[in-house]
Amino acid sequence: FKTPLFSQRLINNINPRFIALKANIGQDEDFDAARKKAEKLGAEKVFIEDLRSEFVQEFIWPALQANAVYEDRYLLGTSIARPCIARRQVQIARREGAQYVSHGATGKGNDQIRFELTCYALYPQVQIIAPWRIPEFYSRFRGRTDLMEYAEKHGIPVPVTPKAPWSMDANLMHISYESGILENPKNHAPPDLYQMTKNPEDSPNEPDVLEIHFAKGVPVKVRHVKEGTCKETPLEIFCYLNEIGGKHGVGRIDIVENRFIGMKSRGIYETPGGTILLHAHLDIETFTMDREVRKIKQSLGIKFSEFIYNGFWYSPECDFVRHCIDKSQESVEGCVQLSVFKGQVYILGRESPKSLYNEELVSMDVQGDYDPCDASGFIRINAVRLREHNRLQGAAQKKL
Amino acid sequence: FKTPLFSQRLINNINPRFIALKANIGQDEDFDAARKKAEKLGAEKVFIEDLRSEFVQEFIWPALQANAVYEDRYLLGTSIARPCIARRQVQIARREGAQYVSHGATGKGNDQIRFELTCYALYPQVQIIAPWRIPEFYSRFRGRTDLMEYAEKHGIPVPVTPKAPWSMDANLMHISYESGILENPKNHAPPDLYQMTKNPEDSPNEPDVLEIHFAKGVPVKVRHVKEGTCKETPLEIFCYLNEIGGKHGVGRIDIVENRFIGMKSRGIYETPGGTILLHAHLDIETFTMDREVRKIKQSLGIKFSEFIYNGFWYSPECDFVRHCIDKSQESVEGCVQLSVFKGQVYILGRESPKSLYNEELVSMDVQGDYDPCDASGFIRINAVRLREHNRLQGAAQKKL
Amino acid sequence: FKTPLFSQRLINNINPRFIALKANIGQDEDFDAARKKAEKLGAEKVFIEDLRSEFVQEFIWPALQANAVYEDRYLLGTSIARPCIARRQVQIARREGAQYVSHGATGKGNDQIRFELTCYALYPQVQIIAPWRIPEFYSRFRGRTDLMEYAEKHGIPVPVTPKAPWSMDANLMHISYESGILENPKNHAPPDLYQMTKNPEDSPNEPDVLEIHFAKGVPVKVRHVKEGTCKETPLEIFCYLNEIGGKHGVGRIDIVENRFIGMKSRGIYETPGGTILLHAHLDIETFTMDREVRKIKQSLGIKFSEFIYNGFWYSPECDFVRHCIDKSQESVEGCVQLSVFKGQVYILGRESPKSLYNEELVSMDVQGDYDPCDASGFIRINAVRLREHNRLQGAAQKKL
Amino acid sequence: FKTPLFSQRLINNINPRFIALKANIGQDEDFDAARKKAEKLGAEKVFIEDLRSEFVQEFIWPALQANAVYEDRYLLGTSIARPCIARRQVQIARREGAQYVSHGATGKGNDQIRFELTCYALYPQVQIIAPWRIPEFYSRFRGRTDLMEYAEKHGIPVPVTPKAPWSMDANLMHISYESGILENPKNHAPPDLYQMTKNPEDSPNEPDVLEIHFAKGVPVKVRHVKEGTCKETPLEIFCYLNEIGGKHGVGRIDIVENRFIGMKSRGIYETPGGTILLHAHLDIETFTMDREVRKIKQSLGIKFSEFIYNGFWYSPECDFVRHCIDKSQESVEGCVQLSVFKGQVYILGRESPKSLYNEELVSMDVQGDYDPCDASGFIRINAVRLREHNRLQGAAQKKL
Repeated sequence: FKTPLFSQRLINNINPRFIALKANIGQDEDFDAARKKAEKLGAEKVFIEDLRSEFVQEFIWPALQANAVYEDRYLLGTSIARPCIARRQVQIARREGAQYVSHGATGKGNDQIRFELTCYALYPQVQIIAPWRIPEFYSRFRGRTDLMEYAEKHGIPVPVTPKAPWSMDANLMHISYESGILENPKNHAPPDLYQMTKNPEDSPNEPDVLEIHFAKGVPVKVRHVKEGTCKETPLEIFCYLNEIGGKHGVGRIDIVENRFIGMKSRGIYETPGGTILLHAHLDIETFTMDREVRKIKQSLGIKFSEFIYNGFWYSPECDFVRHCIDKSQESVEGCVQLSVFKGQVYILGRESPKSLYNEELVSMDVQGDYDPCDASGFIRINAVRLREHNRLQGAAQKKL
Repeated sequence: FKTPLFSQRLINNINPRFIALKANIGQDEDFDAARKKAEKLGAEKVFIEDLRSEFVQEFIWPALQANAVYEDRYLLGTSIARPCIARRQVQIARREGAQYVSHGATGKGNDQIRFELTCYALYPQVQIIAPWRIPEFYSRFRGRTDLMEYAEKHGIPVPVTPKAPWSMDANLMHISYESGILENPKNHAPPDLYQMTKNPEDSPNEPDVLEIHFAKGVPVKVRHVKEGTCKETPLEIFCYLNEIGGKHGVGRIDIVENRFIGMKSRGIYETPGGTILLHAHLDIETFTMDREVRKIKQSLGIKFSEFIYNGFWYSPECDFVRHCIDKSQESVEGCVQLSVFKGQVYILGRESPKSLYNEELVSMDVQGDYDPCDASGFIRINAVRLREHNRLQGAAQKKL
Repeated sequence: FKTPLFSQRLINNINPRFIALKANIGQDEDFDAARKKAEKLGAEKVFIEDLRSEFVQEFIWPALQANAVYEDRYLLGTSIARPCIARRQVQIARREGAQYVSHGATGKGNDQIRFELTCYALYPQVQIIAPWRIPEFYSRFRGRTDLMEYAEKHGIPVPVTPKAPWSMDANLMHISYESGILENPKNHAPPDLYQMTKNPEDSPNEPDVLEIHFAKGVPVKVRHVKEGTCKETPLEIFCYLNEIGGKHGVGRIDIVENRFIGMKSRGIYETPGGTILLHAHLDIETFTMDREVRKIKQSLGIKFSEFIYNGFWYSPECDFVRHCIDKSQESVEGCVQLSVFKGQVYILGRESPKSLYNEELVSMDVQGDYDPCDASGFIRINAVRLREHNRLQGAAQKKL
Repeated sequence: FKTPLFSQRLINNINPRFIALKANIGQDEDFDAARKKAEKLGAEKVFIEDLRSEFVQEFIWPALQANAVYEDRYLLGTSIARPCIARRQVQIARREGAQYVSHGATGKGNDQIRFELTCYALYPQVQIIAPWRIPEFYSRFRGRTDLMEYAEKHGIPVPVTPKAPWSMDANLMHISYESGILENPKNHAPPDLYQMTKNPEDSPNEPDVLEIHFAKGVPVKVRHVKEGTCKETPLEIFCYLNEIGGKHGVGRIDIVENRFIGMKSRGIYETPGGTILLHAHLDIETFTMDREVRKIKQSLGIKFSEFIYNGFWYSPECDFVRHCIDKSQESVEGCVQLSVFKGQVYILGRESPKSLYNEELVSMDVQGDYDPCDASGFIRINAVRLREHNRLQGAAQKKL
């Protein structure tokens, strides 16, 4: 169980009572097998929860509104899934009266923080069991072999396929790959690593052209211009964009990032639908949002991304920023045409009833309600400070 | 003359004395013809200045160090060329004793501001003649036809090829397209518009893999892994990356942006070499720079981009930020491998003698100098604030 | 008229029709005389508008919520009055069908910008007449004597008292002094300059202790602890704090500030009530607001202050930031006790039903729900990055 | 020992070898007695280190250049002392071959973090012993009585004077008071609490007027205008300002602040000299620094303050920001006259050879090199965006 489960559980010999939770956030997984496995292991109850719709609407959409990107590149696909899962875990734990929750995240990563901060925020009295931080546990299981032996001995079903030499985390928004052979930041990712996106070298030689309609900063309709296909619910929209983006190899990145815990790590991500939406949202946003509001909102979005990455989705600061960003999206409405092709997204054009673009005003050919002479004064006043600075502190000379 | 000229010039009938300047910043142009034309028009002196090397080293490199991108998308190819040209204009004007300088930028755009703020900053006493803001001038020449008639009548040589239905600005770093049929933000850019980059649909079916070596945040060597080609001077490096990027259709964007003058405009840009470098620099920077320094530097870079876009290259704030960013680049050193293919740049791997990446520390398989138990305390202390907030202001309930 | 008037007015000889507006924003002025003067000058209508309550509630309160201070010192008393006045001017102009508005602000200052940006924002089609920027006007009236002669000649009543050798602007929130003998930044302000505040050297030798009650970040009640005096409406609260602050000489500053127009100017301000409130609000805010929300809100407040100072009260960015700050104030509730004495405000204590302060948690004497061992992990994880940095880039040696 | 000591020390019964360090950072203390006590306790070596000069020059001066203030009020007197002490501790520990260092800070406070992050940064391999986070220690000594009994039993000399019902931390820059009866945030501080500053009610009835001369953003001379007293070395300057500030009761604050550890705490501080310098530095800085540089520098200063408060003095981000701020101070030079009186600092005037203030340019009476007509264009261009916004999104109506 990579996704967390909660339990009244002891590490050692006593038989604990526990409840198992498996969240369906869009990963490709055999949920029936998971249920059986949990029951076999003695879970009192097993919850297999379909969180896909709420993941899209309550987590992906706000991240999209913020243009949330961590360190200029990472679209936060794992970071926003964690609070979604942990929230449900807390809901069930509270309802079922569990005083402990547990998860399988490792002790060096970000996910332990994301799970646990969500739990502490939403269930302040909860106790958390994180086996990979318990010496008795991690000393006993030092590698895959130890785990396999233990599983075999205790009749725990495990996958028989040999594991890929890296670890991955998958959900509706993305798959991330790290560890193993990827730990050497110089090593290239093997071509067969990616599971959501086709290799652009093998992707279709013809683009797909889409129209994405936005209201309040989130997509409300996607239309395939040629084929006429239309999607209008959040989950369908997102899945369809994953399909198109995946087909064209969109959204692959290979980065080194800074973990909250203070170390750098190397991650490879594929985020097909999310990448298409980021391009489209950036476009419609700049088209409809005031310049100065945009600047402030951009800096809020950067902070928001850091908060999310660090696990603070459920925090006063995230609530506050989310509210502010939401406010900024009121007029982010309209339609973007774009082309998806060979790993890339190309914006083709946009239109909006709330656009702040004034074709007449900006035209080179007509004057509109604009007097070019005003620009002279504008420039000269802007120059006052520069001229004074150079006059009084003699800066000009140094530059020439 | 789209690039500025300076002159003691009058708009009307008196014959002014003037000196002409044409800057070579890498655009594809017949400089001999330009010289002849200027002489024919009566220029006392004609300067054709090759600014390409200084453009790369003193303008493109600092922008690269800053990851300078305006409004998340525009790489500022025109914005950084203006101060480069205007600085030379001022140098010549001062040397030649000219008290007036002039340029041909329009009255609605950003370029007038960029030219003039540079002039005022470096030559505070200068007077500026901007014909497109002089009513006698712009009222007389209301369109292309008026200009053509005037040119014919006065024997001014003009290009005979029919002008494209948009305007463009070209230099070593990029070509921008705007106006005309592009003014409708919904219109798609015609496929034959682009001049620096091949259409990705027609670009090679095989990637080129490059190694880019950085020192102090700027490229010092580019190597084509398969062909072994090496470039080591700034101008050669940049031109080579333009060639590779152009061949694969890299760096095309279609955006609506916010001009300093307060209006939104639509621009289409192609920045092949700059786009490759931005990807590579982002990668090596995150690999070698401390996380918290990166955050501060990122916000300085965003401000820097706004300053540059608005024409403040030669300003106290730009000097200051440039200095700070330069300081941040001291350890940005190492080599990035990347693949260029079908309009996209893919990072493949990186290495650096100054990396802050510690493979052992981050490894899932070895513990390194790290105690997982510490993470429990880290998380619990981070949770203190969240738990208190939810306890005292009852926020948890609202979320469940 | 320092406050603006609007008119269909010509500078020269033609007799224009015009309407006069005098805003009462708390300055000490003979409004009857003003009305008579306007009528005598031929105003078709004269509006004397009492804006004091809306000035406090719609302008001072939001500035207080933001802790709005320009360049770390100036409390923006003039800056927030301008949009208040200009809004009313626009309301009347629109209602009365006036197509021109006018004001008496000079051509070097900030106020012209504040008035006019408000007018343009709220009445985009309006034309503005600013005599002090019209060459025919300012060339004719080069100094006080010219104006006096003109007034006498045309029977315009003017004050007979000799004018102080500086200019001032007064309203409910503050009085500002500048120009004249104050233009030399080295000159001390004469002791008789101040009109709202007593010289602390002559102020009472005993403090007044007040209790200020806040709700949603604005004061809702002020109580004089000893005397029992209570004020509960915004205007009364503010006037009472002016009285107490004035009596003790609170809120005097002498600064050099940066005008929007690009020059530095010297200003002297007295803001008695506003200064008391700023201290109190800062205190109750930090007591009730989450730390990280506070950081974001602080940076928004700084931006807000710049926007206000520059005249952008009625702008998309100010609307946006005001909304965000308002949101941040939801729990800013409680009571601050403070002492006002000899030019200074001393916070004595505070309490709040929404406090995030947990006396047990922070106590040195009881442990509360806190395990000191967690701090070890917290510190060690925070040290991971620092230790790595010093290990990999050898920074420690340089510091020892 | 509130200041840290380092040791190879065990908590329980074994007799450890240890070295004692007492830092003199300006607190009022009997250092001979401290030495004897340490020797009596068995310290192999005792170091009493006078760090006052380096505290002023390497810690207080950079904080002053940054106008470092945490959460708008706290001048960081304790925060900057910790890295100063811990650096010396590390120097001695390295030199003497100690592998462990220890300190007496509690487990809920900021100081443990400040000490330890400095140690880890400058001596990455060090082990830290923090008794107040060791259960065996803090469970045994639950209050003052336990400690007293232990001391008596083991012959450890302890002060006989009854302890004040709060704790304090003193150094050259400030004294802080917290805990005990101050933990209730509503309780007023008792009047006899303060030790560095006189009660303003009892302070002189006549101000002292000082001239403070700055170069590169730090004071280089202080002169008492009337008495002619002059101080010119950093330590003397700072001590003299403490004397004057203390005499007039300057720099007392009572605040609730946010600890790094996530809880709010109440602190009372007196910072006489530092408060005078902050006022003076703010003034000379704004007088000599470009407006836009100031904005950036201000935001860096706020970040710097947070870093310092949280214990990151020796971190890559603090190094970086300190460098940037230092750069910004190059022209911060000149002289400020100010008056100190009854708890308040009043700026009277300033002058500087590097001032960017241009008396002629700003004058109301002369035009200088400024054309008021330019302001019309400036305003109208600034209004373009506002007018469009209101026209296209109909915002004006809502406001009227």
